[in-house]
Amino acid sequence: MVTLTDTATDSFVAALRAQSRRYHDRHPFHERMNAGELGPAEIRTWVANRFYYQENIPRKDAAILANCPDRAVRRRWLRRIVDHDGTAEGEGGIEAWLRLGDAVGLGREEMEDERHVVPGVRFAVDAYVTFARIRPWVEAVASSLTELFAPDLMAERLAAFERHYTWIDRQGLAYFRARLTQAPRDSEHALEVVTEHCRTPEQQAAAAAALSFKCDVLWSVLDAIDRACADR
Amino acid sequence: MVTLTDTATDSFVAALRAQSRRYHDRHPFHERMNAGELGPAEIRTWVANRFYYQENIPRKDAAILANCPDRAVRRRWLRRIVDHDGTAEGEGGIEAWLRLGDAVGLGREEMEDERHVVPGVRFAVDAYVTFARIRPWVEAVASSLTELFAPDLMAERLAAFERHYTWIDRQGLAYFRARLTQAPRDSEHALEVVTEHCRTPEQQAAAAAALSFKCDVLWSVLDAIDRACADR
Repeated sequence: MVTLTDTATDSFVAALRAQSRRYHDRHPFHERMNAGELGPAEIRTWVANRFYYQENIPRKDAAILANCPDRAVRRRWLRRIVDHDGTAEGEGGIEAWLRLGDAVGLGREEMEDERHVVPGVRFAVDAYVTFARIRPWVEAVASSLTELFAPDLMAERLAAFERHYTWIDRQGLAYFRARLTQAPRDSEHALEVVTEHCRTPEQQAAAAAALSFKCDVLWSVLDAIDRACADR
Repeated sequence: MVTLTDTATDSFVAALRAQSRRYHDRHPFHERMNAGELGPAEIRTWVANRFYYQENIPRKDAAILANCPDRAVRRRWLRRIVDHDGTAEGEGGIEAWLRLGDAVGLGREEMEDERHVVPGVRFAVDAYVTFARIRPWVEAVASSLTELFAPDLMAERLAAFERHYTWIDRQGLAYFRARLTQAPRDSEHALEVVTEHCRTPEQQAAAAAALSFKCDVLWSVLDAIDRACADR
């Protein structure tokens, strides 16, 4: 097996981190959101569409588990599913997102029946779940590394919502607060897995491509939401 | 939606339970095992090959999670993965099976590197995991219903091992003991899901076919093990 020097690992990790420039925090829709420029209808469109992403996360993570032969990795990865599904009714990240829906004026039913979900969002999210299902599990883990960039985005988003969107009950923002601590824990584990398993230039290129693909997923979700808002 | 009378549900459940006649406890190899007729080499062949089934169970269950859109079902189904993987190194059903290997004289390495696994076992187990991956999730749940029949088999097996195979340390039988309580809990949940979701004759036929398929998987595993023992 080719083993990497620390320098090679460092430059691989640096290459992964450099993809932050393709992260969706730079999307025009996201910039307008953080600048406080969105109206209630646009916020609602974002929340209802992004919910489709949220509710598919545990299925994406279960697909990774299904492909992963390493018990130790599975044991830690399972926590992500618990974070989103909760351990009882009324708990977990998906529930927290439903409460965000409630806080912005969307009923549970219209969130869960996906009536507001636009095709572009569905295609992008489904592509992500399919990627986790059919690609090698280490690449699927690499695709999750957008979480490296998530805490900054969450912190900025929380500040922006509390400042600009005072019509939204702050209780509704619990999901973002939870991710401030969950995302760093998750990305640390994913980075451990990826640096341990991606030792050759080809494996590292595949991991970087997976992360790039995931940036495309998040970006496309905002493209579709932005377009849906413009069409109103 | 077609709703069933209690009678229709009862007869569906009866049809599922009737498949116990196709369960692998009636396989000649299993009958010889319980009669105390297997030698140490045959027991070892069974333990090493069956381990391939055991280590694939969490991946099969994760595939079901990945396909299941119902959070409440996922929350309960997740427990199966935890039962097999454990929550820490040295815990869980797969670990318990490795200890059974140790008790019958098989090293951890020769269990984990699958050197004793014969092709017929691999094909049957892989077919089961693939079924969970590609079939509708309710059918995959139905395929797990062999657990309805497992407690009787486990109780009989435990008695047989303690009586006939006294060369095996009883500590090694912990997996079988755990399943005495886990299997009824799991099959109760699976039966709830299947009776709730399979309301039409077509859906019920698909569930019965899934359970029949699973009986074939277990039977084929023993066929392949039996053959491997005869070829020694």
